[in-house]
Amino acid sequence: MLALLADEESVVDPAAVVVPEAYERAFAAIESDPRNEILVLVEGTGYQGDDGTVVGSLQATYIPGLGKGGVERALIEAVRVRADRRGGGLGRILMERATARARTRGCELIQLASDKRREDAHRFYVALGFANSHEGFKLTL
Amino acid sequence: MLALLADEESVVDPAAVVVPEAYERAFAAIESDPRNEILVLVEGTGYQGDDGTVVGSLQATYIPGLGKGGVERALIEAVRVRADRRGGGLGRILMERATARARTRGCELIQLASDKRREDAHRFYVALGFANSHEGFKLTL
Repeated sequence: MLALLADEESVVDPAAVVVPEAYERAFAAIESDPRNEILVLVEGTGYQGDDGTVVGSLQATYIPGLGKGGVERALIEAVRVRADRRGGGLGRILMERATARARTRGCELIQLASDKRREDAHRFYVALGFANSHEGFKLTL
Repeated sequence: MLALLADEESVVDPAAVVVPEAYERAFAAIESDPRNEILVLVEGTGYQGDDGTVVGSLQATYIPGLGKGGVERALIEAVRVRADRRGGGLGRILMERATARARTRGCELIQLASDKRREDAHRFYVALGFANSHEGFKLTL
């Protein structure tokens, strides 16, 4: 399911979002899975003829779990803000909407991993209330 | 779907696995989701009357993604080896089977997060070939 979190609740036609061909299969898999979604931050007037501009996006995966008393958690991946719009608070808005959505779904935890080289991102997540409590590991297959 | 990865391909009746009542809903959610599964390592003879003993388990979530060229990734959570059986290589066997299974499903990446205090676990994952390339963040809702 594709969720478009638009400013002022304006809605953008998903078909208007340009997706590189290589990603189409992954996009379809996300769209058809009730436990995965792409949240898109859209700026625009909402007036007729203005579909708005995508300025940020992230992927959320809602995971049932046996840990921590069986609570459901949200995994956030691929947090992106358009390069020419960074530093203006859009990332915070995007993350706050993802947090609100996870809460609405009944999640009790949000988790994410950020590349060790991205210290600015780490400060950003700590400022949002995240605890840098874990080490993140990846294995390429 | 519940996957039981048993020694010598012996299979254990899932109904024989004791699950605390508080976890039953989460367990049902995992069982009914094709993108989530619990892998269980079972020791036993496989002879009639011996259902084996669960000595290890983990949760795997298979996530379609737009990052890294649209590859599917596996998230590993809740890696557990029975307390009285640690240090004997069962964790490695469990992780190797999870890796093989992720590969079979077409995943190109496995990721996990481990509490910063668990330095022994970090050495374990690095020994398995994982790169400690990320910082892990959690936000309790």
